[in-house]
Amino acid sequence: MTVTDRLEAQFAFLNEADRLKHVMRATTTVDGSRLENSGEHSWHLALYALVLADQAGPGVDINRVIRMLLIHDLVEIDVGDVPIHSQNGQAHASVETQAAEAKAADRIFGLLPPDLATSLRTLWEEFEAAETADARFAKSLDRIQPVMANLMSGGGTWATYNVTYDQLESRVGSKIAKGAPALWEWVRAKARPWFA
Amino acid sequence: MTVTDRLEAQFAFLNEADRLKHVMRATTTVDGSRLENSGEHSWHLALYALVLADQAGPGVDINRVIRMLLIHDLVEIDVGDVPIHSQNGQAHASVETQAAEAKAADRIFGLLPPDLATSLRTLWEEFEAAETADARFAKSLDRIQPVMANLMSGGGTWATYNVTYDQLESRVGSKIAKGAPALWEWVRAKARPWFA
Repeated sequence: MTVTDRLEAQFAFLNEADRLKHVMRATTTVDGSRLENSGEHSWHLALYALVLADQAGPGVDINRVIRMLLIHDLVEIDVGDVPIHSQNGQAHASVETQAAEAKAADRIFGLLPPDLATSLRTLWEEFEAAETADARFAKSLDRIQPVMANLMSGGGTWATYNVTYDQLESRVGSKIAKGAPALWEWVRAKARPWFA
Repeated sequence: MTVTDRLEAQFAFLNEADRLKHVMRATTTVDGSRLENSGEHSWHLALYALVLADQAGPGVDINRVIRMLLIHDLVEIDVGDVPIHSQNGQAHASVETQAAEAKAADRIFGLLPPDLATSLRTLWEEFEAAETADARFAKSLDRIQPVMANLMSGGGTWATYNVTYDQLESRVGSKIAKGAPALWEWVRAKARPWFA
């Protein structure tokens, strides 16, 4: 592959990635004025990783976590965001959803030169599997950022989807606790009164 | 500082940073449908660094470049974006603008626990000074992303501000060439016909 062909492929991917700025989430910005898009969400999460690195467990490579978070939502360009508290969100682990996301990953990472396509696709799969320490911490941040947005904006998706405190614990808390237990303790204490 | 006080400070910063999603730039998204905001722009740039790492010069630490790009625009929460081709953009190096940005940096990074406030403020100052290899590459990406958005969307800020090819060379090209010369060669060849 010539340098020119390589640059064509790199920019085909970067221009396609731009579409993530148009994928809307159920969560609002912190001021509650509008829905957040998945591009700016990905930036905010990477900043979370940078600032909350001291909350990561032993062996976590924060640079890998940041890279994961930069690419973790790209499949949503084809599949859309599935709000965690929506009916679809609760069926999110379905075989159909996983197949659709894998197909989206084939297409989107497939725009890149082969070496980058492989390395970024592999990194996305690691995030999705949530088995390594890096992926578990990245997933915890991805779950905690909407909790904070809901708290700051007066309820957000908790109100939209009539979420109970027990549902918050099982859908979100139990997962945050796997990657960032002290962080969840602290945020839970803030969230609990909202559900009282 | 207790862990709880530290978390309060970390989240005071992360919640304040959210406001960058409401700072609008002069550049549009790639599809030309709306203006881009500085939060999603920061995400896109970090992705540029991840994907174009092979265009960085010797000695560039791409993880530091990504970190720089994640925080490079935070001062805009107070100061706003200054489009490079606008009249103000051409006066951007003015003492007044620099003083306003330094004051914004004091306030925004000052929300963090002291160790993080110092390290991220120092990283931002390194970006602004554009003297290290990391900062020069980060600045090059920050200049090249709007060029690509203008190309993809049919002119963008070049049309808005009646930019000439010579102005593009002096305001943008000469700066990109400092940190990513081969990248500028490739993009220049694509941009030139627009100005013909």
